[in-house]
Amino acid sequence: MQTIKFLQDQPLFGGVGEAAMQAIMPLLRDLDVPAGGVIVKEDDEGDSLYVIYRGAVEVLKSDPDADDPLGKRIAVLKVGDVFGEMELIDMQRRSATVRAMEPVSVLALSNGDMLRIYESDMPTFTLIVMNLARELSRRLRNLDTLAAHYLGRDRESE
Amino acid sequence: MQTIKFLQDQPLFGGVGEAAMQAIMPLLRDLDVPAGGVIVKEDDEGDSLYVIYRGAVEVLKSDPDADDPLGKRIAVLKVGDVFGEMELIDMQRRSATVRAMEPVSVLALSNGDMLRIYESDMPTFTLIVMNLARELSRRLRNLDTLAAHYLGRDRESE
Repeated sequence: MQTIKFLQDQPLFGGVGEAAMQAIMPLLRDLDVPAGGVIVKEDDEGDSLYVIYRGAVEVLKSDPDADDPLGKRIAVLKVGDVFGEMELIDMQRRSATVRAMEPVSVLALSNGDMLRIYESDMPTFTLIVMNLARELSRRLRNLDTLAAHYLGRDRESE
Repeated sequence: MQTIKFLQDQPLFGGVGEAAMQAIMPLLRDLDVPAGGVIVKEDDEGDSLYVIYRGAVEVLKSDPDADDPLGKRIAVLKVGDVFGEMELIDMQRRSATVRAMEPVSVLALSNGDMLRIYESDMPTFTLIVMNLARELSRRLRNLDTLAAHYLGRDRESE
């Protein structure tokens, strides 16, 4: 299990105070995953988000042209990165598969835990949701650049 | 100006009750933009989000290959859609330009207004932030599919 200090330094818990972190720590589940282990699977239902505190994972999205049966790699995530949060926010199925590239340790926070934080400490809940939204926004900015690049290419080749 | 009922039906204000909407309505600024008018400009600083209630806009992202000096079109947004919210969440500059494709009317909500909602009605503020996060999540899901498609193509052509 990681320290409160480590978690406060990660984007997900940025700005969350000591007392609030003390209340959140017991909610987090600690998972160790061997290299090659699948942590979340595309199209599964999912009710937890994960913070990586050891190792790296790859994000795979199914695609008919992929060599890997789980899909094409669209991202690599490392210590401090979060995954699985989109499903917590929009209640849809997992958008991609996440597989450990090496031995990985993650902390899991479930939907039920988030509800508990909402009920007991709304300012902290709001802060975490804003941190998540900021992370989604950061990813969208990166992908928008990609979209401009490739959508343009497609139009040219039509 | 639009009715409370209209706003409650839009994703941004989904779940916000009548009394809370009554308090939000006076904060919203009503803007009419002629066809071709630029509402937000890429790289500008921005402190408002916008909800479209009439007309359609195009989202343009600067790109060296674009014919249009403002960039390539990466999306079209219509009545009920929101734009400008990423800057409100992450305090970065505008990620893209938004231009009216026809006469457009929008309601603008500023950062200061959001702070006022936070201070006076935290549950409503939290609901709006969750609605925004859900919208970002929806867009990311669409772009992830695009990313898998094109990143695969790039690898093949290397």
